Amino acid sequence: MSKSKQFSIGVDYGTNSVRAIIVDITDGSEIASAVYHYPSGDAGVIIDPKDPLLARQNPADYIDGFYHSVSQAVKKAKKAGGFKPELVAGIGIDTTGSTPIPVDRNGTPLALLKEFQNVPAAQAWLWKDHTSFAEAAKITEIAQQSDIKYLDKCGGRYSSEWYWSKILHCKKENPKVFRAAYTWVELADFVPAFLTGNTDPHSLVRGICAAGHKAIYHEQWGGLPNEKFFKALDPDLLPLRERFTRETKTSDQSAGGLCNSVAAKVGLLPGTPVAVGAFDCHMGAVGAGIKPGTLVKIIGTSTCDIMIHPLDQSLADIPGLCGIVPGSVMPGMYGLEAGQSAVGDIFNWFVKNLVPAKFTDRGVDVHVNIEREAAKLLPGESGLLALDWNNGNRTVLVDQLLTGQIVGMTLHTSAPEMYRALIEATAFGALTIIKRFEEYGVPVEEVINCGGIAEKSPLTMQIYADVCNKPMKISRSPQTCALGAAIFGAVAGGAFKTVQAAQKKMTGTKPTIYKPNKKAVPVYAKLYALYRELHDSFGIANHQQPLYHVMKELIVLRDAARRN
Amino acid sequence: MSKSKQFSIGVDYGTNSVRAIIVDITDGSEIASAVYHYPSGDAGVIIDPKDPLLARQNPADYIDGFYHSVSQAVKKAKKAGGFKPELVAGIGIDTTGSTPIPVDRNGTPLALLKEFQNVPAAQAWLWKDHTSFAEAAKITEIAQQSDIKYLDKCGGRYSSEWYWSKILHCKKENPKVFRAAYTWVELADFVPAFLTGNTDPHSLVRGICAAGHKAIYHEQWGGLPNEKFFKALDPDLLPLRERFTRETKTSDQSAGGLCNSVAAKVGLLPGTPVAVGAFDCHMGAVGAGIKPGTLVKIIGTSTCDIMIHPLDQSLADIPGLCGIVPGSVMPGMYGLEAGQSAVGDIFNWFVKNLVPAKFTDRGVDVHVNIEREAAKLLPGESGLLALDWNNGNRTVLVDQLLTGQIVGMTLHTSAPEMYRALIEATAFGALTIIKRFEEYGVPVEEVINCGGIAEKSPLTMQIYADVCNKPMKISRSPQTCALGAAIFGAVAGGAFKTVQAAQKKMTGTKPTIYKPNKKAVPVYAKLYALYRELHDSFGIANHQQPLYHVMKELIVLRDAARRN
Repeated sequence: MSKSKQFSIGVDYGTNSVRAIIVDITDGSEIASAVYHYPSGDAGVIIDPKDPLLARQNPADYIDGFYHSVSQAVKKAKKAGGFKPELVAGIGIDTTGSTPIPVDRNGTPLALLKEFQNVPAAQAWLWKDHTSFAEAAKITEIAQQSDIKYLDKCGGRYSSEWYWSKILHCKKENPKVFRAAYTWVELADFVPAFLTGNTDPHSLVRGICAAGHKAIYHEQWGGLPNEKFFKALDPDLLPLRERFTRETKTSDQSAGGLCNSVAAKVGLLPGTPVAVGAFDCHMGAVGAGIKPGTLVKIIGTSTCDIMIHPLDQSLADIPGLCGIVPGSVMPGMYGLEAGQSAVGDIFNWFVKNLVPAKFTDRGVDVHVNIEREAAKLLPGESGLLALDWNNGNRTVLVDQLLTGQIVGMTLHTSAPEMYRALIEATAFGALTIIKRFEEYGVPVEEVINCGGIAEKSPLTMQIYADVCNKPMKISRSPQTCALGAAIFGAVAGGAFKTVQAAQKKMTGTKPTIYKPNKKAVPVYAKLYALYRELHDSFGIANHQQPLYHVMKELIVLRDAARRN
Repeated sequence: MSKSKQFSIGVDYGTNSVRAIIVDITDGSEIASAVYHYPSGDAGVIIDPKDPLLARQNPADYIDGFYHSVSQAVKKAKKAGGFKPELVAGIGIDTTGSTPIPVDRNGTPLALLKEFQNVPAAQAWLWKDHTSFAEAAKITEIAQQSDIKYLDKCGGRYSSEWYWSKILHCKKENPKVFRAAYTWVELADFVPAFLTGNTDPHSLVRGICAAGHKAIYHEQWGGLPNEKFFKALDPDLLPLRERFTRETKTSDQSAGGLCNSVAAKVGLLPGTPVAVGAFDCHMGAVGAGIKPGTLVKIIGTSTCDIMIHPLDQSLADIPGLCGIVPGSVMPGMYGLEAGQSAVGDIFNWFVKNLVPAKFTDRGVDVHVNIEREAAKLLPGESGLLALDWNNGNRTVLVDQLLTGQIVGMTLHTSAPEMYRALIEATAFGALTIIKRFEEYGVPVEEVINCGGIAEKSPLTMQIYADVCNKPMKISRSPQTCALGAAIFGAVAGGAFKTVQAAQKKMTGTKPTIYKPNKKAVPVYAKLYALYRELHDSFGIANHQQPLYHVMKELIVLRDAARRN
């Protein structure tokens, strides 16, 4: 434990913006923060109107984002008093992922070179870019043919959201970018590398979190999959395999000290320890107080559902999970990651596209207006049932080629009824994940929610409690991911001996707990049974109920039409 | 044929208003018209916010509607010149149906008596009232157990929209009204009865159209079903069976002459012939120029799909049709009725509930704004597929306990895409009906469309042509039902010897014909195959694909919640 007043800094790279917070490590309280909205594209995301699967980001936004957010936060903290740069124990970084960035021999993102400035394939490939679904299927196929069961640690199916799918698709989308990329660096590794001035592909520090969850890196097979695997996939990937770091680190370790130039830009001391980076939800889980038996749900545009399990206890390879990686969340623990491909994104889609004027013209957030009406409905009252697949299904189906569905409309069905059905659909998706954990011997004894939706939507939290028949707790900090990053900053900087010791001081939940409503629980149990029928009929191939191909064929027809 | 200038009057009782037109019988041209919007309830329909299945109408609106619309039209015609009351060959009446009205011993609607004025069960039970689904199922069950196959002429299933279902449900909903009703008179029969002053239940004229299509009246079994059938159903119905007219008439015949009091109110001559009434779509089919091989689609809030088939040619009992009744459309022909429970109603539902402000604030009809955007899409481009069941499915499933469905939404799905998917869904429903006719030996050689949607929505007509792979013609008259009524008025009044002779003079189609687009046809063929899979999975009991119960259970849950 630290003896004198100390601080740490957490920097959280989200989908649309980056946030820096400065926290007091004695109680986790935030003394200053600043946000920087990425200026490129549509709210920070470079999109292609002709291809809804594409989502990229400008790497320059990440660098500018660090400078702006951290320097602003430091200024505010100095103004508030009690803060000095020399009191900063360390800096932690969390980011979206898998968000790989193609870089040159020096580790400079290709997108920062004039030649590739406006080339979509040269940008960062944001987590929600799904252009690589064909490549993901190929990787799954080849992994299934391998002697080593490479995908058993990540749900049995490789995702179009992940590292190798994207790299392989780049070869098809833009061979020039593919050839120019000396290696691809996950955003979670790129930021610490840039901050510590160690971007050289051969020496930069890669974290276990991104490597283990997205790049099929696992100590069980000695790092990346073997040469045979990559040869079968595409021999052009072999050099990239060679250039991938041999060792990875956990985020309680330091990736190095802040380099002079960055330190000067943000008003901190050179050499301030920078923790190894990890994904937002993983650090968020730590910031929410994760421990064995606790499910942490980070609910934003999508969700990450994180659990941990002691390395010395047996654990099955749980099918459909996004990853089971030793040390990815906390040293000494398996990090278990599941998730829903869209939650807030579905609500935003509905509000943007399908809400009539009467809910929009009162100077109040449309979500609030429509949620007020939706909250007046009883479970089952709308007669509606929806699938939460507008952005595919990450867990447990691991299939991006799935789409949304709503059943039960009459001539009286209203927008609030549809909105509530969509909330319920995401709750059913959440319950499906909980059931999967429990079916494979990982009991969910506690659920802690964090992220924007957990903070802002009491109706969503109550429906989650009723559908899952479990109390829903809310993380005390509204910036749990950044707080988790700050915790790792403090641990990497030596202020605490263990992550658990830092959690004990710095994390907690709010006094309000959403408890299951006894009347709602049995109704939702019935609705969930129906949800599972639709889920299995439309979501599982070769199932008795042969509607699996319906969504697939609709996508084929859509894509054919869009090519016209 | 008439030798001098002559006119006839058609009065069309729709769901929200009644329209009177005065036409020149030499060419069918309209010389005057007037509309009266029913003042009661919500746009003429008495609803119950707690029960979306209920839809009633105030019978006083029908009487006032005749006075207002006809007197206005007569005034306009006189003003325009050339028109004199003595030149009116006859008056024809068409109405919605089955819309039965409980009346007392004098034939006075109970709703017009002070005691029952505001009692919902005492009003006219509008066609789209579906409160009687349980009774419909019971009637179907008992008919199936009968020696005589009473429902083979109406698709094998009795509907909740029909006469006996509603009467039987009234006993449950309001026993007092049930006991007070001496008989129940279809709106199509009530209006001519009222106009001719012959409302006495024992002498009023009932048309074959309403009796044959809705009241299980058929010459094959000598009128209504036998006593045994009604005893099994409910012995309390036996008196109603007794009081039902023994004989029915076709609409080329006169129901009598206009009575003095009504004639004085509207400025016509007493004794002016009034044709036997029939349903709007049946007379509309005649007004559109129906002949064997021609399908007439009257597309409004719902559709009626009418064909005729010579009585002297063999005809199977086509399953799923609403009715196969000799003489119901035209003397000497089987009248074949099919229909979709909602078409315009689905578009209106969507526009009212799910269209964002950007399509509403340009001072233009929202339908036009959104259709303009929907028209820019290619078939299949939205990736969406919908079922057109927001108001159940009349043909071929004959099941009101079905609901809407949309599959294929992404995070980019827009309101115009959804709107187009709904139009396409109604087109797939239309094709399902065409296929059913053709599968049972009634080839569809020509399709003539009429009604508001056919007039106003070129996109809908083009999609219908593309989906059905048949040219879509539009009836020349924008008021085809009223024109059909005027044709029957002219024939009943003796101005023509046959309905066909009147049609030859008075009907036609517009020069614009929507022809199938060669590129769209194969795409829609694929989408239709997927539609049929959803249709069969969710719509057919005991099907291999056991999702049939999903919509049913959602309705059970909805109703349970609404009772809370």
